[in-house]
Amino acid sequence: MIIDCHGHYTTAPKQLQAYRDAQIADLKNPSATRTLGTLNISDDEIRESLEGAQLKFQRERGTDVTIFSPRASAMGHHIGDAKTSQHWTQHCNDLIHRVCTLYPKNFVGVCQLPQTQGVAPTNCIEELERCVNEFGFIGCNLNPDPSGGNWTAPPLTDKYWYPFYKKMVELDVPAMVHVSATCNPNFHTTGSHYLNADTTAFMQFIQADLFKDFPTLRFIIPHGGGAIPYHWGRYRGLAQDAKRPLLEDMMRNNVFFDTCVYHLPGIELLTKVVPIDNILFGSEMVGAVRGIDPRTGSYYDDTKRYIDALPLSDQDKKKLFEGNTRKVYPRINKKV
Amino acid sequence: MIIDCHGHYTTAPKQLQAYRDAQIADLKNPSATRTLGTLNISDDEIRESLEGAQLKFQRERGTDVTIFSPRASAMGHHIGDAKTSQHWTQHCNDLIHRVCTLYPKNFVGVCQLPQTQGVAPTNCIEELERCVNEFGFIGCNLNPDPSGGNWTAPPLTDKYWYPFYKKMVELDVPAMVHVSATCNPNFHTTGSHYLNADTTAFMQFIQADLFKDFPTLRFIIPHGGGAIPYHWGRYRGLAQDAKRPLLEDMMRNNVFFDTCVYHLPGIELLTKVVPIDNILFGSEMVGAVRGIDPRTGSYYDDTKRYIDALPLSDQDKKKLFEGNTRKVYPRINKKV
Repeated sequence: MIIDCHGHYTTAPKQLQAYRDAQIADLKNPSATRTLGTLNISDDEIRESLEGAQLKFQRERGTDVTIFSPRASAMGHHIGDAKTSQHWTQHCNDLIHRVCTLYPKNFVGVCQLPQTQGVAPTNCIEELERCVNEFGFIGCNLNPDPSGGNWTAPPLTDKYWYPFYKKMVELDVPAMVHVSATCNPNFHTTGSHYLNADTTAFMQFIQADLFKDFPTLRFIIPHGGGAIPYHWGRYRGLAQDAKRPLLEDMMRNNVFFDTCVYHLPGIELLTKVVPIDNILFGSEMVGAVRGIDPRTGSYYDDTKRYIDALPLSDQDKKKLFEGNTRKVYPRINKKV
Repeated sequence: MIIDCHGHYTTAPKQLQAYRDAQIADLKNPSATRTLGTLNISDDEIRESLEGAQLKFQRERGTDVTIFSPRASAMGHHIGDAKTSQHWTQHCNDLIHRVCTLYPKNFVGVCQLPQTQGVAPTNCIEELERCVNEFGFIGCNLNPDPSGGNWTAPPLTDKYWYPFYKKMVELDVPAMVHVSATCNPNFHTTGSHYLNADTTAFMQFIQADLFKDFPTLRFIIPHGGGAIPYHWGRYRGLAQDAKRPLLEDMMRNNVFFDTCVYHLPGIELLTKVVPIDNILFGSEMVGAVRGIDPRTGSYYDDTKRYIDALPLSDQDKKKLFEGNTRKVYPRINKKV
């Protein structure tokens, strides 16, 4: 079985964005009644949004299941307040639940969190519980920068995050470290902010003893671990100079990279330097890059092709495509 | 000849830091007379600071010349005001000039700029002219984030920077895009802030037509180009989706990466995907990582060893070690 650990519902019916647009417009109107409201999307509209996109690509590329979450760039935790995020997040997660109910063999859910700039993530516990216990979701996306590019929250290793981590451990669900759109004009959302956040999170993990406090806490750093594998020697050296654990030891049961790296030489490097046990197959499809590479004739984000081309043993490929993901997201075993 | 394009004076005599400490302490005292002051460092102290470090490594590693600038992490453009930066920068650059005068065959100067958080870089023109015209420096380090990790300045492609670029073009000197220490606790100076800035700058260059406005403006993005080469497919795809030029065309005469990547697989990737004409040998020695890799027995930052191990033609190695650097920093040809 081939499990893609990184897919977002980037093709949701247009009513979802219309809801969000209206919600944002209401923020300017202090007298607006701020209720959860409703979203009228039919099952057929959901099917249509997926059949020509994610499901088509699953079939064409030979992948079986996608761990599926709301569109990351649209989480927008810097917009409005905690109530804004709560309503928006509930609708986004409800929709993922409907997708997973319609296509239980193709999608397993991961939730967005109602994080809010300046608000401690304790208020995300309830939504995590709802999604895991009521919907059967198997993880969450955690935004290390709810300010959208101004980086005003404490580092991920700060005790600020601990109550939320405690709940993750209790529920035995991992988090993908994933920022959202940036409102800082220096950054491009998918071109620099995403990768910078990945790199930033990993360095935070090097510096602190978070996994001594939470030995079973698990994070997936997406986009192939940001800049880390390319600079593996730099990070080995920085950890060594600072008398911190070896990278492999720090990562072992706690930190994992996906394979969202859109060319063969990048994937070769990733699998050469990072322990194979810490790599999960992922494609981010349909996501940041939608085009076809004229040099290969294939989609840039068809990352399975790059892995198929690697000289890995069958056992290692099985780990990468399935085994590691089952270990990191154990609740998937009840699903597929 | 082997030219290392990226070295900082990280081993300067302790009087330099003492000056800075006093300057920062004075910021808390509004009645302090804020004068340039003096720095009493003897030639012998300068020699001593280099003989056991940069010069020793040049000899041991077989490199000839280092393009040398003040310690990047100490630039601290977020500290104090424009006068603070002006005084601090003048002393730092004066010291580099003394190094280059004492060892004209080993070091060629690149200047720090008196950038200041919230102040347009027009005020850096005078110091650039002083260093190039009076000292014979051949380039500068330009900080895209003088706020030290809060990213409050406009992107490098904004007209905010144009008057400074105009002077760079007039003097025919390039800039290395190099941030300084971060005061944002999310970031580690050399572990994430540096690489994030590299990635951020490159994505800014993809998005705008800066090099149409300045066809001869040249930037070196250090640390192997941040996350870019590892994610070369992602950037090719992002540029393609956005109908921007091919990366190779955008970079050709304007954007260059150094080889500060501290392991062989990283350097292999860099030279496989990035045009060889756009790569300059650099080591960042003595810099971010000072240890010896127990797996190789060599210093992590001895990047020449990685390049020596590559299956490149003699012609390509000559470009990488010397030719490209002479092209990017043409004023070096009057020096060595």
